[in-house]
Amino acid sequence: MEREHISASYDAELNDLRVRLLAMGGKVEMMIDGSIKALLDRDTPLAERIISMDHEVNSCEVSVDEKCLELLALRQPAARDLRFITLALKIVTDLERIGDQCANIAKRVKEINETPPLKPYIDIPRMAACAATMLKEALDAFVRGDAELAIKVCKDDSFVDELNMQIQRELLTYMIEDPQTITRAMRLTYISKSLERIADHATNIAEMVIFMVKGKDIRHTIA
Amino acid sequence: MEREHISASYDAELNDLRVRLLAMGGKVEMMIDGSIKALLDRDTPLAERIISMDHEVNSCEVSVDEKCLELLALRQPAARDLRFITLALKIVTDLERIGDQCANIAKRVKEINETPPLKPYIDIPRMAACAATMLKEALDAFVRGDAELAIKVCKDDSFVDELNMQIQRELLTYMIEDPQTITRAMRLTYISKSLERIADHATNIAEMVIFMVKGKDIRHTIA
Repeated sequence: MEREHISASYDAELNDLRVRLLAMGGKVEMMIDGSIKALLDRDTPLAERIISMDHEVNSCEVSVDEKCLELLALRQPAARDLRFITLALKIVTDLERIGDQCANIAKRVKEINETPPLKPYIDIPRMAACAATMLKEALDAFVRGDAELAIKVCKDDSFVDELNMQIQRELLTYMIEDPQTITRAMRLTYISKSLERIADHATNIAEMVIFMVKGKDIRHTIA
Repeated sequence: MEREHISASYDAELNDLRVRLLAMGGKVEMMIDGSIKALLDRDTPLAERIISMDHEVNSCEVSVDEKCLELLALRQPAARDLRFITLALKIVTDLERIGDQCANIAKRVKEINETPPLKPYIDIPRMAACAATMLKEALDAFVRGDAELAIKVCKDDSFVDELNMQIQRELLTYMIEDPQTITRAMRLTYISKSLERIADHATNIAEMVIFMVKGKDIRHTIA
């Protein structure tokens, strides 16, 4: 009975870790969507809310880290659980840095909203949607231990990379044709670069999930 | 006797982890220096060597990760050791990504070496030297448990950020005055951004070290 009690409570704690991590992931996804919505709608108050959400994400990071250390210290997990918890420790760092990138995007959006719009935004929202989906799927892959889904995320990264290159090239032509646009175009290149970094973090998470599931390291073998 | 034997071997294993992590750090520092040397000397073969070193760093990451999991599973470390090992797990990820950034810099250097130089490089080598020192000091702070040194690293980050801003502004004036320089100037901005990311990784490591030493989380309180 005692052993069953401990085991049930251990499962509950592992589940609590899972829930905390997903809640943090959900918050970060909202930040991605919100920062781009603030760009499209020229909504500076929304950009400011996204910047302030960064603190909440930082608190989530501390709380997930503490939960992981507690589980490692008190539960002495082995094998699969050990891999799950150590991976949570790594993933939480990526989530926190995605939050940082969203705050960076929101800061650029505030600057952009003070000047006339340079052009209609088509590829940046596509890139953001793709990066947000990649993050969602990477976290789903993590909690479900789904290597196939994680592999899909890794493959999608090249689409975001290509969109980023395309945006950089397009903005370059603006700058060449009219140097007056350079400052504004540079701000958009930063946003595009931040979205690419977000997709990189999602890919990093997915690669680690594949490692967790398959037990071997493919992080550096997928092109 | 038996217990002493186990304890000595445990210490040896912890030390082995420390040594592996520092060796990886040394390799990554060499990549930072080498990628910028390849820029200054217009040395494309060196740039290619840096790109190929990325694989070695990836192997180091796998080996450190495995050592950490082994220690957690077989040694069931508590308190200080647990914090040290879980931190090593996080740090190794930062080191691997610094390696990626160096490979990115080296790729841009190869492109730059195919065109006439845009300008003499003054701030980029300063930035690289500062980022490399930050990394070295962050790792020293980690192995020595030196919170003061880690705090210094966090403070130095703003110097790198300022240099990056200064480089971006300077390259903008080149682009405005002569749009013919845009492609080359953009490549230099990527290098500058990569160096800033490297300094960010060093700062992340330092913040985590302060957490390890002081036992409380200041990651999100230092400006």
